[in-house]
Amino acid sequence: MKILLAPDSFKDCLSATEVARHLAEGIRRVYPGAHLTGIPVADGGEGFVQTMLSALGGEAVTCRVFDPLGREIDATYGILADQRTAVIEMAAASGIELLKPNERNPLVTNTFGTGQLMRDALEHGCRKLIIGIGGSATNDGGTGMAKALGYRFLDSKNREIHLGGGSLNGLIRIDDSSTFPILKETEVLTACDVSNPLTGTQGASAVYGPQKGATPEMVKRLDQNLAHLSHIILKDLKIDVLKLAGGGAAGGLGAGLVAFAGASLQAGFDIVKAQTGLELAVQQADIVLTGEGKMDHQTKQGKTPWGVAQLALKHGKPCIGVAGFLGEGYRELYQEGFTSLFALPNGPLSLEESLAQAPQLLADTAEQIFRIIQLSKPE
Amino acid sequence: MKILLAPDSFKDCLSATEVARHLAEGIRRVYPGAHLTGIPVADGGEGFVQTMLSALGGEAVTCRVFDPLGREIDATYGILADQRTAVIEMAAASGIELLKPNERNPLVTNTFGTGQLMRDALEHGCRKLIIGIGGSATNDGGTGMAKALGYRFLDSKNREIHLGGGSLNGLIRIDDSSTFPILKETEVLTACDVSNPLTGTQGASAVYGPQKGATPEMVKRLDQNLAHLSHIILKDLKIDVLKLAGGGAAGGLGAGLVAFAGASLQAGFDIVKAQTGLELAVQQADIVLTGEGKMDHQTKQGKTPWGVAQLALKHGKPCIGVAGFLGEGYRELYQEGFTSLFALPNGPLSLEESLAQAPQLLADTAEQIFRIIQLSKPE
Repeated sequence: MKILLAPDSFKDCLSATEVARHLAEGIRRVYPGAHLTGIPVADGGEGFVQTMLSALGGEAVTCRVFDPLGREIDATYGILADQRTAVIEMAAASGIELLKPNERNPLVTNTFGTGQLMRDALEHGCRKLIIGIGGSATNDGGTGMAKALGYRFLDSKNREIHLGGGSLNGLIRIDDSSTFPILKETEVLTACDVSNPLTGTQGASAVYGPQKGATPEMVKRLDQNLAHLSHIILKDLKIDVLKLAGGGAAGGLGAGLVAFAGASLQAGFDIVKAQTGLELAVQQADIVLTGEGKMDHQTKQGKTPWGVAQLALKHGKPCIGVAGFLGEGYRELYQEGFTSLFALPNGPLSLEESLAQAPQLLADTAEQIFRIIQLSKPE
Repeated sequence: MKILLAPDSFKDCLSATEVARHLAEGIRRVYPGAHLTGIPVADGGEGFVQTMLSALGGEAVTCRVFDPLGREIDATYGILADQRTAVIEMAAASGIELLKPNERNPLVTNTFGTGQLMRDALEHGCRKLIIGIGGSATNDGGTGMAKALGYRFLDSKNREIHLGGGSLNGLIRIDDSSTFPILKETEVLTACDVSNPLTGTQGASAVYGPQKGATPEMVKRLDQNLAHLSHIILKDLKIDVLKLAGGGAAGGLGAGLVAFAGASLQAGFDIVKAQTGLELAVQQADIVLTGEGKMDHQTKQGKTPWGVAQLALKHGKPCIGVAGFLGEGYRELYQEGFTSLFALPNGPLSLEESLAQAPQLLADTAEQIFRIIQLSKPE
């Protein structure tokens, strides 16, 4: 029996790699000799680097960068086993979790640290960067990132403007004459799971600004500044990112990566699928397991386990989902490639107990499922 | 596909019949054409009458009896479709739930009402009584029950003693000359799931007296009185119930039914099994479902779902257990005939939420299970 374990992470609880490991433990109680393949599937958010390293091999690299407020911190990214591909989470250098609530100020927070991670990877010889953008503290359109790679953002007196989304109104010209040379030879893939444009009512500032500390007045100013940035980008770099779907991701870092690093924006799941060979693994499996902390009717709006189930459906494989919580309308997923779905709790449990016991519950639930499967497949 | 649904009740939540119905609903979502047989299995406790009526057909009969304190109440028992077999719960007439906490006094509470139910059944033409004894408020050794059937319990002045376990010390002689005549031709089966003897440290008074309102002094007095009763029974009826396993059930009603009604004490499950044809139904099923509110390592100490699983094991049938809570050591049940076990909660839930949502969760869990089974059995 060949079993593919392709879960997402369980948010605030276990990484996708850990989820796969605990599921495997339960399956082995029933099928000690089963052929288990683990492809933990994270989609660019929390745990992306760890997941990609675990799925594809490689090593973590830690370097010294600036956090969103310019303080030095250690941040980690991954270099895959091919030695040519780096996997970076923008949140490691520029994430909201790095700030205390009262430090959140998208006028000044910036993505310089993310650019430092990219530069470090290039200096390590990488020529392909896979960048997960989620959980940002910033609203700078990726200008901080670009500055770290040699771009110069100049005002009317040819001086560099300050970092942060609040200073972009002073931008007159972008100088790309001294960018880090290898950047142009480098393939940059950006894992981006939102489709917000750079500006407007669905733009970066309006939708995500408030959670980064923006007042309504700041949202208005940030939005105007990003619109202004897009005009200067169009003027100097001949790239139009104003309406780009996903350009508003991570405070406009989506647009910035396209404009300044030639990135393509892709759904995180599609990147993971392509990089990990997920589809081939589904084809080779007898049964596929996936899951996420919570699954419900929204799961079918493109979440990772849904993507796994769709592959299973395409190749006629059973796909079983496991979740900490099966929420409203989860049964709709039975039409979407899920053979069946199971929740973890073994009885009345609080959320805290459920999180604490998740490793054991994952193993026990996998055991329960595979004891049923064993009825028809003794080996 | 032939599926046997043989659950116990979910205590404080759903009767065995209701549990079976909700499981059936979930199974029908997957197998609309499945052949479902429901044998709700209760073991003599709560819901025993309802379960037996539901499994075997028949009708409920309500009659006017005395409660444990001699107040008139309506109590219900069942007459099965054969018109010859009555199913009686002693708790309907003599149960602890009929008293407020401050009314509990095992010196005076008595089983007269249980005897009235038996007599009513005999007058309705029944010649077989199946009596579930559990949840009693009494400690009278079944003397109340016997008095309702014509026995006379006399003191040294040939007067009838008062009802209740506190007056048995005055008993000198038992007069059985005017008992209800049909009683001797009647088969009495007592569903009894405890093995406590009438007296001593494991006896009725010591173990169950306190929960019926007995103080330590009262326990001592009640225990002596039951010992005295057993001596008089031996002297006058030539039956020795002192050491009888189960004699201490229901405040000594177990011993009383043996002595005064010629009853046999049997495990509730064995009675239900024999009366419902459970074993034949297991033999004819492709899959067996059972369950109880809570299942854990204690389930294998003879609880109903364990009995069902043992039958399934004997006949080589898969048996799946469903519980509101899978407690400590439930995985030990995998060695006892359970193919697999599933808990109901679909996420972090309080006990109250779990109870309130049990109907839907039972259906959803059955659906989850049978969607897996469907992998190997499309029809």
